[in-house]
Order: sequence, then C-alpha cells, then structure tokens
Amino acid sequence: MATAPVQDYLEQLHAELAQVSGGTIADYIPELTRADPNWLGIAIATADGHIYQVGDSRQPFTVQSISKAIAYGLALSDQGLDAVLAKVGVEPSGEAFNSISLEPDTGRPMNPMINAGAIATTALVRDDRAPPLERLLATFAGYTGHAMDIDTAVFESERETGHRNRAIAHLLRGYGILESSPEAATDLYFQQCAIRVTARDLALMGACLANGGVNPVTGVVALKRRYVDKVLAVMSTCGMYDYSGGWIFNVGMPAKSGVGGGIMAVLPGQFGLGVFSPPLDAKGNSVRGIEACERISRDFGLHLFSVARATSATVLRRSYDCTRIRSRRERSPAETALLAEQGGRVRVYELQGELVFGSAESVELAMLADLAEADALVVDLKRVVAVGDAAARLLLRLAERVAASGKQIYFTETMHLYGFRRLLQKTHAAASADWLRFDDTDRAVEVCEQRLVDAAGVGADVLDGADLHNNYLCRGLSDTALDTVRAAGSERRYPAGAAVLSIGDTAQSVFFVLAGEAEVWVSTGEGGKSGRRVRLTTLGPGTVFGEIGVLDRERRTANVTASTDLTCLEVPFAVLDPAIREHMLANMARHFAAMLRENAELVRHLA
Amino acid sequence: MATAPVQDYLEQLHAELAQVSGGTIADYIPELTRADPNWLGIAIATADGHIYQVGDSRQPFTVQSISKAIAYGLALSDQGLDAVLAKVGVEPSGEAFNSISLEPDTGRPMNPMINAGAIATTALVRDDRAPPLERLLATFAGYTGHAMDIDTAVFESERETGHRNRAIAHLLRGYGILESSPEAATDLYFQQCAIRVTARDLALMGACLANGGVNPVTGVVALKRRYVDKVLAVMSTCGMYDYSGGWIFNVGMPAKSGVGGGIMAVLPGQFGLGVFSPPLDAKGNSVRGIEACERISRDFGLHLFSVARATSATVLRRSYDCTRIRSRRERSPAETALLAEQGGRVRVYELQGELVFGSAESVELAMLADLAEADALVVDLKRVVAVGDAAARLLLRLAERVAASGKQIYFTETMHLYGFRRLLQKTHAAASADWLRFDDTDRAVEVCEQRLVDAAGVGADVLDGADLHNNYLCRGLSDTALDTVRAAGSERRYPAGAAVLSIGDTAQSVFFVLAGEAEVWVSTGEGGKSGRRVRLTTLGPGTVFGEIGVLDRERRTANVTASTDLTCLEVPFAVLDPAIREHMLANMARHFAAMLRENAELVRHLA
Repeated sequence: MATAPVQDYLEQLHAELAQVSGGTIADYIPELTRADPNWLGIAIATADGHIYQVGDSRQPFTVQSISKAIAYGLALSDQGLDAVLAKVGVEPSGEAFNSISLEPDTGRPMNPMINAGAIATTALVRDDRAPPLERLLATFAGYTGHAMDIDTAVFESERETGHRNRAIAHLLRGYGILESSPEAATDLYFQQCAIRVTARDLALMGACLANGGVNPVTGVVALKRRYVDKVLAVMSTCGMYDYSGGWIFNVGMPAKSGVGGGIMAVLPGQFGLGVFSPPLDAKGNSVRGIEACERISRDFGLHLFSVARATSATVLRRSYDCTRIRSRRERSPAETALLAEQGGRVRVYELQGELVFGSAESVELAMLADLAEADALVVDLKRVVAVGDAAARLLLRLAERVAASGKQIYFTETMHLYGFRRLLQKTHAAASADWLRFDDTDRAVEVCEQRLVDAAGVGADVLDGADLHNNYLCRGLSDTALDTVRAAGSERRYPAGAAVLSIGDTAQSVFFVLAGEAEVWVSTGEGGKSGRRVRLTTLGPGTVFGEIGVLDRERRTANVTASTDLTCLEVPFAVLDPAIREHMLANMARHFAAMLRENAELVRHLA
Repeated sequence: MATAPVQDYLEQLHAELAQVSGGTIADYIPELTRADPNWLGIAIATADGHIYQVGDSRQPFTVQSISKAIAYGLALSDQGLDAVLAKVGVEPSGEAFNSISLEPDTGRPMNPMINAGAIATTALVRDDRAPPLERLLATFAGYTGHAMDIDTAVFESERETGHRNRAIAHLLRGYGILESSPEAATDLYFQQCAIRVTARDLALMGACLANGGVNPVTGVVALKRRYVDKVLAVMSTCGMYDYSGGWIFNVGMPAKSGVGGGIMAVLPGQFGLGVFSPPLDAKGNSVRGIEACERISRDFGLHLFSVARATSATVLRRSYDCTRIRSRRERSPAETALLAEQGGRVRVYELQGELVFGSAESVELAMLADLAEADALVVDLKRVVAVGDAAARLLLRLAERVAASGKQIYFTETMHLYGFRRLLQKTHAAASADWLRFDDTDRAVEVCEQRLVDAAGVGADVLDGADLHNNYLCRGLSDTALDTVRAAGSERRYPAGAAVLSIGDTAQSVFFVLAGEAEVWVSTGEGGKSGRRVRLTTLGPGTVFGEIGVLDRERRTANVTASTDLTCLEVPFAVLDPAIREHMLANMARHFAAMLRENAELVRHLA
C-alpha cells in the first residue's frame, strides 16, 4: 500500500520541525529537566480511528496540564453541570497558568484550565465506585485504550516543590471551594499531572473528543456525549492561557498544552492531534508543538469554523417515487399501469451519513414539499451512521405533521439507530409502532403501493390465476395449446413457509401461480454460509416462476418459498410441444426486453 | 404544504418569549428610546437559503454593534490580515463594550468588538472604488440581498451625544492607530451603527457566515471565504463582551449583539439566527434575544462543537469494481469472462456532499488499501457540492502517489469544482490533463476496462464481425440458416457521426455490426426538448442492435449513432423464415435472462 498522503505530510513536517530550535525545558519541577530537548513526536488520530504518527510518538512523558481537560470532563460526569459550575467558572482569566484568579466574593476560580480551577476540579472527582486516583487512571485508559500509570519520580519531585499550588489549595479551602483536606487535593492533583502519556495517546484522546466522546478505536465511551461540548468550550476559550483569542484566530482548534511538552488539539468531527517536544516558550507552551499546530492548520486550511455544510446535498443519497422504481413485488399489467400513473404518491428517500440540524431540516423541507402530491413517505436510514439530537427531534416533528395530515410515514432500516427509535417510542408509543413498522424498505414500499392498488380495485386478487391467459408466458397461445399445457402439468400445494425451489436444484419445470403468494429470494451469505435473506420478488396469481432456469436447463439461481398457502401448476418444460416452447420463449424475450427497457428508462431518469 | 417543523417550533418559541419581561431600552442614544419594548422578531436562515421567521421579523431597527463583525470582515478584505492585526488585536478584553482597552505600549485596541477596536477597524475600510460609507452599505447589501439605508435620526442623535467614542477616537489618533481625522472616523462609525436591518436581515447575514461567506439566497460573495473563520473567531471569543466564555459554554454559537436590541448568531455550516427585541440587560444584550438563543441551542442540542463527523461514511455514496458493474460498452463473451475475473483491478468511487479533511482522508485510506489490488481508480465527484482546501490537497497528493506507482487515477464529473480542477492543473499541468481527462464516469471506466481487455488480447477487434456465429442472436443456427439470414440482409455503411436509428422510427430490421462501433443513446430532454446525451451502450463487431424494437414491431426507443466508420448487415426481421425467427427469439430470451440474472446478482451484492 502506498504511503497515505497524511503520513507523508507528517514525515515532511517532522523533518522540518526537527530543525526548529528555541525554548527551554521546564525546570520548576526538577525531575522534568531530565527530558531530551530533541524529542519530537507528532500523531493524528481520526474520528474513525486511523492513527498516523511520526518521530518520538511513543516516547512517554508526563501529561501535566493537559490532564485538566480530562479531569474536568470526569468531574462533570461525577457531579453534574450545576455542581461543578458552583465551584469553578468558565470565563477566560486573561492571565498566566499559575495565576490565582479567584472571583473576589466567592473565591471561585475563573476557569478549570488555570491551576486553581484544576485543583478545585480534581477534588470534585469522586463517586462510590473507586478511589479518585483509580477513577482518573481508568478514565485516561478509556481515552487511550490501554492501562495508564504514573511517573512517580515526577510526582515526588512536584510534591516536594509545589508550594504555590499548596498555597492555592489552602486559599480554596478557606473560601469553602475545597471541602476537604488541601493536602489530599494537591497530592491527587500532582498525581494526575504525573500520568504518563505519549503523543500517540494525546492524539487518540483528542480523537475521542472529536468523536462525541467515544474512543474510535475501542468503541469505549471515554466521556458522556453531553459533556464533550463543555470540555471543548473551556479548551477553546481558556486552553492556551493568555493566548486563547489568538489561538482560536490563528489555529482554530480547541487545544490544551502541558509543561511536559505536550499539546492535545481537537478538530471536532475530524481528528485529534498530539504533539510532544519538551522545550517551552515563555507562556509554558511547547515551541515546536505550537509550530506544528499552526503549520497543520495553515497547510490544510483547517479551522473549527470551516466545517462541511450540513444540507440535503450532504445526506440525501437519492430519492424516487414508485413511478420510477417499484418494490420487488411482481405486478400484473393492470397494477403496473396504475403505478406508472399514480406511483408518485409514494416517495422514498435514502439518507446517508450523519443527520444534524441543518441536514435534517433541509431534507424535511424537500419531503414536506413532496407531501402535497404524496400519500406516503418512506425514509430509509440504512446508511445513516448517526442521528443527532436536533435531527431526531426534527424527524419526530415531521412524523407528527405527516400523521396529523392523515398520511403515512415509515422510517426503515433503523435498527442501528437506537436513540432515534427510543425517542419516537417514548414520545408516541402507539404511533411509533406504525412509523417503525418496517425495517426493510422494500416491504414498506410494497405496502404503500398496495394501498394505491387496492384503492383502485386492480389488485392481483381480482385475477383468476387458473386462467392461464392471464399469464405472460402463455399470452397468444390458443385455447387448445393451453389445454396441452394444463394436461402436461400437475397441481402442487405448498403450506405457507414451505420451500418450493432451492438454489442448485436442477431446473426442469416452470410454475404457474394459481392461488396464494410466493417469494423469490437469495441470501447474502457466500458458499453455503448463512447470510441476510434478500427478496428478489414476490409473486401472486397470474404470475410464473422458474422459467429462467429452464431456458438453459441449468440449476436454479434463486430460492422460492411459499409466503402464504400456495397453489401452483408445475409444468415440465421439455415435454411441451416444440411450437409451444418456441412461442413461450418469444414471450419471455418480449417480457425480459420490456424489463430491460424499464432499466434503460431508469438510467435516463437517474443520469 | 404542512407547516415545517422549524417554523412550527419558532412560532411556539415566539409565543412563550412574548411573555418574558425585564430589561430596559437603551437610552444613551436618545433616539433609541422610541423603540416599542414589545417588538419581538426571530428568524433563522439556513446555509442553503431557506428563511423561517416569526413576529416582528421585518421591523427595521439600527444594527449598532453587530456592524462591528461586518466591518471587521470588510477591513480584512480591504487591507489584508497583517495590516489589520497591526492596528487591532484579537484577545478578549474581559471588559464591557465601551471600555477603553488599549495595549499600554502600542495603543492597539484589544479586539475589534469593543468600541475602540471597532472605530479603528472602520477607519481601515477603504479602497479606490468607492467612499467608505458606500462600501459599507454595499457590503451589507451583499449580506442581506437588498439595498440598505441609514436611520438618520439615530445617526444624528448618536453624533450629538457620542462624546465617549470621540474621546476614544482622539486617543487612537494620539497613538497613531488612527491615521486620519478622529471626527471623520467617528462620523463613519456612527453611520455604520445606524444602518437599518431586520431580524430577517440578521439571520441571512449569519447564514452568509455559516455558508463560507456566500449569500445562500443570491449566490453573492458577501465575504471572501478566507476571512470567514477570522470574523467568526473574534465573534466567538469577543462577541458577547465579558460573557464570552459563558456564551460559548452555554450557547455555543459565535454571536454579536447590538444595543438596538438585535443579536446575530451563527452555527457554521448550518444556519444564521437573527433575534430582535429592544429591552437590554445590564451588559447591553437583548434580554429576550439571549433567552431565544439559549432556548434554541438547548432545545435542539445545537453547539459549535456538535458537528457531523466527517468520515468516509458521510461522503462515500458507493464503491464498486468492474466485476460487478461494468461500463455501458457491450462486451463479447470473452471480454465479459475476462472482466468477471480481472475487473477488480478497476475500482470506482462515487462521492457525495462536501469533502473536508476528515472525510477526504478517510476515503483516501480506503482507496489506498484497494490500490494493492487495483490498477486504476475512478473517482466520481458528480454529487460532491464542494471540495475544501484540505480535501483538495489530499486528493492532489493521492493523485501524485497513484501516478508515482505507475497506475491510473481519473477524477470524473468535476466541471462544477473549479477550484479543485485549478489546483490540479496549477500543480501538475501535464499530469492533470490525464487525471481530468474524462468528465463522464462511464467513459473513464470503459477506458480502464479496455486496458485489461487489450492486455489479455481478448478484445472485440479479434472477433470477425462478418462471421455471424459470433453473434449471440445467431448462436445455434446452422450454416444454411445463416446463409438465409445473410441473403435476406443488405450491407450498410455509415461514416463516423452518422445517425443509424432515431427514437420514434418504425422498427423493422435488426442490425449486425460487421466492423466499426456504434453508440446507443437517449437524451435527458423530455418531449423533444434538447437535453444531456446519455449513453446506454457502445457496440462493436460481433454485436447486434435493433432486436428489441422488432420483438413487437414497435417504434425505436433509443438512438443509434455510428461512433466510428461503421458497417452493418441490416436484416428485415419479418422476411426471415419463422423457424429462424423463433430460434432468434429464444436466443434473445436467454440473453436478456442472463442480463436480468446479472441484475439479481448485483442486488445480492449491494444489499
């Protein structure tokens, strides 16, 4: 496999950044000075879980302040939004990371990204399941996909020298922001800062935040979805200290840096970026880390606000009505004619990707416009990977509107969209049973078609299946010839569910459906393995099956099962008079040609 | 048409907000006190140009500070990034709107959203084309889609009382930030603030920013794309004064408010929101405006960071190889067998929606993985509405990679993607001619197939078209019977480009291709109107056409044109011996059945 463009780019970037000098290694924690100033690791983890990495991307170092973002998310999960906001604000302080920015009256730290706010936040990490440090390590493990540990040398070193942070903790205790021992709070905070990570870990942590809180590699929920926006919000306004405004202006990605030399940046919906290079600038940010983020943002024109538009063009895979594409039910000529005329009253929409407010709104407008002419909407969500809250509510409102107008709407292929199904079921228990009635789009379309057919009184049930004249294969044969056909055949009865033909059977007979229904289907499983059953067509009285197999006296290429009690006339093809056989072959040619002509018509419409 | 869900929601919201009281009308500009405190207008304009509005959404009022965002974008366009940054910073001040937040050394205002920064920004609006006020009004007109004017009473009123702003202008002149008359600068600034807008206008202005700077209704470029992120960045960090951190945390949309009672908010890629209600809170923001933004954000779970993921699932409409779907060129049995075996070496990708970094990266990984087995990639961009900078560069790198490996890549249906084509052409003038060689996907696929066919030496050119045995329609006929067929026919020659059959002609003959090529096609135009020509198939020696029409002696349903010099044997079907006709009909049935069976196989694969 050729090198991926992004890998290629990162290698080039790494080579160039390796030449960048400047900055000094943090020395306020003595143990940090042991870092090699030449270390340089860069990693990008995408929102669908692919990881690119170059250089010292697997070199461990201590996470330091980057942990503040992770701990804030954990505190929100443990305590809820209001309890956390009561102790820590969300306004940028405009000051350096070690400033003591407390609100004058309450002592509430300005935000969770300065040390004061971070110590208060970490003290909020608690539940009954495990001690706080274990909870922190387990949470980090959720983000990185592997067990985490602490660099005890760095922890001990910071513990011995962290007087300013101890002072902050005592001030917080004095204001009642900390409710327990300041010593315990700073110890836990120092341990949190000493967790060992790599640039690769940071990228994946960022990817979890880019992916709605879910680790895209393991599928583990690292952070509840509803708190992801909140963590990204404080990163974007407070993550880079007094460079926050410029950072969003220039780089445009929520980010957090640490004095260990790491930076974690997030482009929501797209990727997490981790950079590691120990030398720091005067503001405590990694010199080459900042440069890497700025370069990547500039070179690719990436920015938080440069998102893909969410409109119908992005999620509507195709839409059609039943004049152009019908269900796989075989229709009589009268039914076909009716649907060609009235099929516009059934409309199908195949959606794709992620539905958010803008895309759902845009698609719904198109559906509502169609509703003036349509009686039924079938919305196929098979290729939709997620339905956002806003989109789910808009679809629910649409369903309510359609139901109120006495028309039908079916959402099909929704089994993977648990939250969306649940919203419909919770809000309208009775109605939703109908809205979610079909998982298979083709079944939903068939039912909608059938309503038109039944209303017009041209259904297959009015056909006499026993009158072989109604069958395309016998069209044009004389009554005498038909008698010969009947005489050559035997009537067969199958109970509902019985197999009539199976793939691989030798094909010798054609079957005329006299009464009941049969389904022609194949399985998606290859080589005898079981797979999903895919319906090719459903047949009623006046139709025929098995004729394709006998053309070349080959093996059956599809299964046929009785879907109701079924009566057929089985006619061995070889025993028929040659003239009759040739006549039937010509009918087949006409019939198949008409079907192929329909395909051509379809191409013309879809082109 | 039923009420759209969003309209419905806004009406309910309007009714509820009408009950909200509190706040006072701005009185520092005397003329503003004439506003009716009950006015309440809300409008949403989507990124694809649909506008929802309720209440007093058409009531004009003065834009006031919201103009700062528009003027900042215009100054960037007129002066460029560096010149503007030299005069005005981008860091939040953490202070109120009328604070005099200047950097101590340089006198540079902290950001363009405080009055000092806005006055400095407006003074940067200048080019040679028109006086600044005209430029401002024309720019606003680009955003709103209609001519704009100034409320002269408000302008005069502010001019008489705006002493603090005059003081600021003089300070700025003292620092050299303003380079011309402070009086002229404040006059222009007061005029800018007095431009009359409606809630509907604000929504559409926001929609322009949500849509990459393009007015989604008129298609006019309101702001150059490269400055949109910058304007949104200062709105997000400084747009709501000292409530900026909380605003992004709670509401999560870049926004700007004005003391006229307006708020403009933007959800990038999705919509602009305009609210108008005169009573203000202590910070100068519309009370009901804030409430409306918070409610809409909360009720729909909207947030800047809650974007749709950009992965292959969101943009890959479908992909296939030539074992499953082939070009519309009719293939001989030998060619068909070869492609069934080796068609996997040609892969086709149909993309859709907007390509950004994450989605392009994800799709490219899939392509690179396929490249191990494939010789040629065809990337169909027909349904792609935009290719972002990052995506364009990734596609370019992919093309370079593929070319370097000696394989082929074709980007098809790209005529609407001007910027992408230009990037390829600019970077690799020679190579891009090949990459962009086909606009029609089917032609590109045909050429790739043909390469496989030629390499294997099984092309139609090795068939003797004059030997009717090679023709499916004659298969199984005796030599004697073939002689009869030949005797009944006449040889016809057509120069390249000549029409052989036209839709509507009476169908009487079948045509055997002896040498050359013919194309079967229809037009997308309905009822005789000219449309796009859509190829149904291309035919070479050893194939037949016109046989479908003669089945029922009907009219021709497609056009056939000689694509090279063409020699055919035209055989009137009716004059043939009945036994030969029946034999041919059976061959047709077999042939069509095989084609339909392929369709079934396709369904099985696609299901």
